Amino acid sequence: MNDQEAFAIAVEEAKLSYSEGGVPIGAALVSKDGKLIGRGHNMRVQLGSPIHHGETSALYNSGRLPASAYAGSTMYTTLSPCDMCTGACLLYGVSRVVIGENNTYLGGEAYLKQRGVEVVNMKSQECQDLMEKFIKEKPETW
Amino acid sequence: MNDQEAFAIAVEEAKLSYSEGGVPIGAALVSKDGKLIGRGHNMRVQLGSPIHHGETSALYNSGRLPASAYAGSTMYTTLSPCDMCTGACLLYGVSRVVIGENNTYLGGEAYLKQRGVEVVNMKSQECQDLMEKFIKEKPETW
Repeated sequence: MNDQEAFAIAVEEAKLSYSEGGVPIGAALVSKDGKLIGRGHNMRVQLGSPIHHGETSALYNSGRLPASAYAGSTMYTTLSPCDMCTGACLLYGVSRVVIGENNTYLGGEAYLKQRGVEVVNMKSQECQDLMEKFIKEKPETW
Repeated sequence: MNDQEAFAIAVEEAKLSYSEGGVPIGAALVSKDGKLIGRGHNMRVQLGSPIHHGETSALYNSGRLPASAYAGSTMYTTLSPCDMCTGACLLYGVSRVVIGENNTYLGGEAYLKQRGVEVVNMKSQECQDLMEKFIKEKPETW
């Protein structure tokens, strides 16, 4: 699975969350050898959960795997990762984080780089448009 | 609720997890004005979840609260927080982290301090003994 394919899954998850009335942030986790480990989206609204963000939901949906399964993986996420998701990527040895955009929110990218994680910004207008639409429609939720 | 009372809840949660066959790490989150917001324990074994650690379970069990509810809160945890839980504390504006011990595992304490969070180490022999017993009994789980 290449970057475009994996990132498309993250975007699909973000749209799914939007369609559920939730925060439109999605993620996909792909192993070092290019296999999809997990995919998910923000579940703050859907589950009433403060810990199920896009990235952590992708991890949650991957189930309980040995540490080696995550080592060297790539996390695709439609939005710059918050501090918690930044830390989750570090904990599980994610070595690349591919983000959709960081104009609507700038998370822990600098800290990821400081800790040796590669960060790639896809500068996706689609992701930005979706977030802006959501923030405009539900400012109290964002 | 004072430090001793809140920390006792975190230890109680750690023991509960141990009794369930899980990783014996517990946490309690107390608001700025001293009220218990949430309590929980590591659920890696119980739920097969990579994101339900002690601290994140306490957050999860707090439900979905406004950001103001967490601001200035104290996270009590029986073990030094991993990168993910460190980030979760930063995301939710926890201003103090009280840990049981950091001899069996040293997490993101330095980064918490760097970001302005106070870190207090209770140097609890009880927490350390419980972790050591668990690691000895289930090295493959830890």
